[in-house]
Amino acid sequence: MNSSEVSSSKIITILTDFGLKDSFVAQMKGVILSINPDAKIVDITHEIEPQAVEDAAFVLNESFKYFPKGSIHVAVVDPEVGSQRRALIVKSQGHYFVAPDNGILSYVLKEPFDAVSIENKRYFIAKTSTFQGRDVFAPVSAWLSKGIGLSEFGSPVKDIKLCKTLYEIKELSDRIIGKIIYIDRFGNAITNIRPKDKKVREVKVKDMTLPIVSFYSQSPYKPAAVINSDGFIEIFIYMGNAVNALKLEKNQTVEVFLDG
Amino acid sequence: MNSSEVSSSKIITILTDFGLKDSFVAQMKGVILSINPDAKIVDITHEIEPQAVEDAAFVLNESFKYFPKGSIHVAVVDPEVGSQRRALIVKSQGHYFVAPDNGILSYVLKEPFDAVSIENKRYFIAKTSTFQGRDVFAPVSAWLSKGIGLSEFGSPVKDIKLCKTLYEIKELSDRIIGKIIYIDRFGNAITNIRPKDKKVREVKVKDMTLPIVSFYSQSPYKPAAVINSDGFIEIFIYMGNAVNALKLEKNQTVEVFLDG
Amino acid sequence: MNSSEVSSSKIITILTDFGLKDSFVAQMKGVILSINPDAKIVDITHEIEPQAVEDAAFVLNESFKYFPKGSIHVAVVDPEVGSQRRALIVKSQGHYFVAPDNGILSYVLKEPFDAVSIENKRYFIAKTSTFQGRDVFAPVSAWLSKGIGLSEFGSPVKDIKLCKTLYEIKELSDRIIGKIIYIDRFGNAITNIRPKDKKVREVKVKDMTLPIVSFYSQSPYKPAAVINSDGFIEIFIYMGNAVNALKLEKNQTVEVFLDG
Repeated sequence: MNSSEVSSSKIITILTDFGLKDSFVAQMKGVILSINPDAKIVDITHEIEPQAVEDAAFVLNESFKYFPKGSIHVAVVDPEVGSQRRALIVKSQGHYFVAPDNGILSYVLKEPFDAVSIENKRYFIAKTSTFQGRDVFAPVSAWLSKGIGLSEFGSPVKDIKLCKTLYEIKELSDRIIGKIIYIDRFGNAITNIRPKDKKVREVKVKDMTLPIVSFYSQSPYKPAAVINSDGFIEIFIYMGNAVNALKLEKNQTVEVFLDG
Repeated sequence: MNSSEVSSSKIITILTDFGLKDSFVAQMKGVILSINPDAKIVDITHEIEPQAVEDAAFVLNESFKYFPKGSIHVAVVDPEVGSQRRALIVKSQGHYFVAPDNGILSYVLKEPFDAVSIENKRYFIAKTSTFQGRDVFAPVSAWLSKGIGLSEFGSPVKDIKLCKTLYEIKELSDRIIGKIIYIDRFGNAITNIRPKDKKVREVKVKDMTLPIVSFYSQSPYKPAAVINSDGFIEIFIYMGNAVNALKLEKNQTVEVFLDG
Repeated sequence: MNSSEVSSSKIITILTDFGLKDSFVAQMKGVILSINPDAKIVDITHEIEPQAVEDAAFVLNESFKYFPKGSIHVAVVDPEVGSQRRALIVKSQGHYFVAPDNGILSYVLKEPFDAVSIENKRYFIAKTSTFQGRDVFAPVSAWLSKGIGLSEFGSPVKDIKLCKTLYEIKELSDRIIGKIIYIDRFGNAITNIRPKDKKVREVKVKDMTLPIVSFYSQSPYKPAAVINSDGFIEIFIYMGNAVNALKLEKNQTVEVFLDG
């Protein structure tokens, strides 16, 4: 890590499970703007299910890459707030991540990366044990956006907590076996199966065999699968809600059968 | 269309049915900021009911006019994404609209307007068939905000899809017959009837006769009608929820009786 | 009040009960940006329960102080819109507040303060009686952010409406008796009791005696109390929802027992 390891981005994204009805998110934004009035704050989402670290890890990974390199991403789903769990700044894939060390960075972490444990209280606004989103992660992200280098915040770390089950699949000669990992607002079930250059014949879930189509309205009103915009197999009902209609659940097994 | 047909606005509004829990909206914002870091992005709403193109058309029309002329409005409620339905840029009433050609622009389109079909893949970030909000509409709006002219994006079109039933009313000598077209978060039922300079005597819905008042708290706790801030007749219960209490629904007939 | 009483801040926060599905909030933002394109608008929340002035007063007080001095805070939960209730600009604690005179400013108002009744229609965009958030409060906040002085908007007022029950507590020698005043999205029950430098032994609510801990994960899965990041006693269940599990309600009595 050297002195050129500073962000020159003004973009700070925020991802939390704080919801939008309370003052949590606004407090974080106020803290950031008090330190860096030029920060450009963008919400990723605040509607992660309370304490759902794995959902947060998935959504963060789907989102960060569309922002300019150098952007700072604050991700706070933090059930162990106040305990001894570490707080991290990680630079990976050209982006900065500020988050608790609880697995939330599992999918954005790619070698080579730089990481420090946030320890320098000079960059905190207070030392509370229930809301470090406001007291630690927000001010640290603001100081980062002002060009403070990683090494200023704490000492380097290498052993970052990972929860790698989300993307675990089994590849056989004729099919890929994976599972439902995320359910979106439309009731689409997103799996962890990315066929890439392989040709998909059909998709099986719960004894149902679904056809694969190219876009949603190609299968009017009947359940089907599609390769979604991130390359994942996704189960949907056009103009309907597949998860409700087919009673799908997270972690349910899905088999994607391949052609020839 | 000439070379002066370029937007100099940095304001890009976004209206979708994508909700706020997933990464869809954040991905669009990341794409926009990667192309134009100076863009000023404002959310109209992302809580349009999934695929409710008519609601989106109504909300877009209620919102856009309060923004400065030259603003760019991206509206993506797009059940036919990936099909042959066209993608449009429309300049109408001094504003720019970027949207699928599915009726969502029905109420903002006023003659004379300029419109092009978005075809130039140079301004796309990818060619997916499930998320053109991110891959087509977001980047096109960002390039528009950087001053690229309409004709750069594709060829002119004139025949834009319209769904004009929303504002259809019947005007008789003693009353105007219309319907409920939108239900807001307070449970107010907004009708498509604009009395303008006519004096309203009373409002009938479902065999109920409601008085007309000037503001909500003028009719404490009893159902009544008011001319709302956009000029429409609106049925409400002060401090209550009229739609739930009176079992009102979209498309229900409403009669507004006029004074002699 | 003198001519130096002008805000130089570009930050305008908005707090309402308008929700996010309709066009209300976007209309306000459009109005603000039309007057001051450099305004930096930050949402506090729009998910205050409809007409819940007391909740709004609490959330506003929890939020504003984290923003830079000089920030402008527009707070519109306004059941009496259109009636004779006054509209106010208040400068208190170095911040500007723009709101109806209905108690919403109860907790942010600290002596010495400056206040005017908004009367000068020159700074309105229209004179509707159902949506002054858009027609009065939004444009006035935008003009404030452009440096217009308080006295330009109307005449000074001193007697501002207060609802002071929220923070009323009874302090005995061995305990403090207060109540639940707010329920957050995690189902945590926030009380109006701030122990400050006093040592808390235990907390009683509904015949239950709860231990006091330092942070959430210190009491795995059992109901407990914590002093939250704003100094209030808060009842929670780690990884659970205390309000649902214990059937807690707003205004329920809570007793905090002190040590020694």
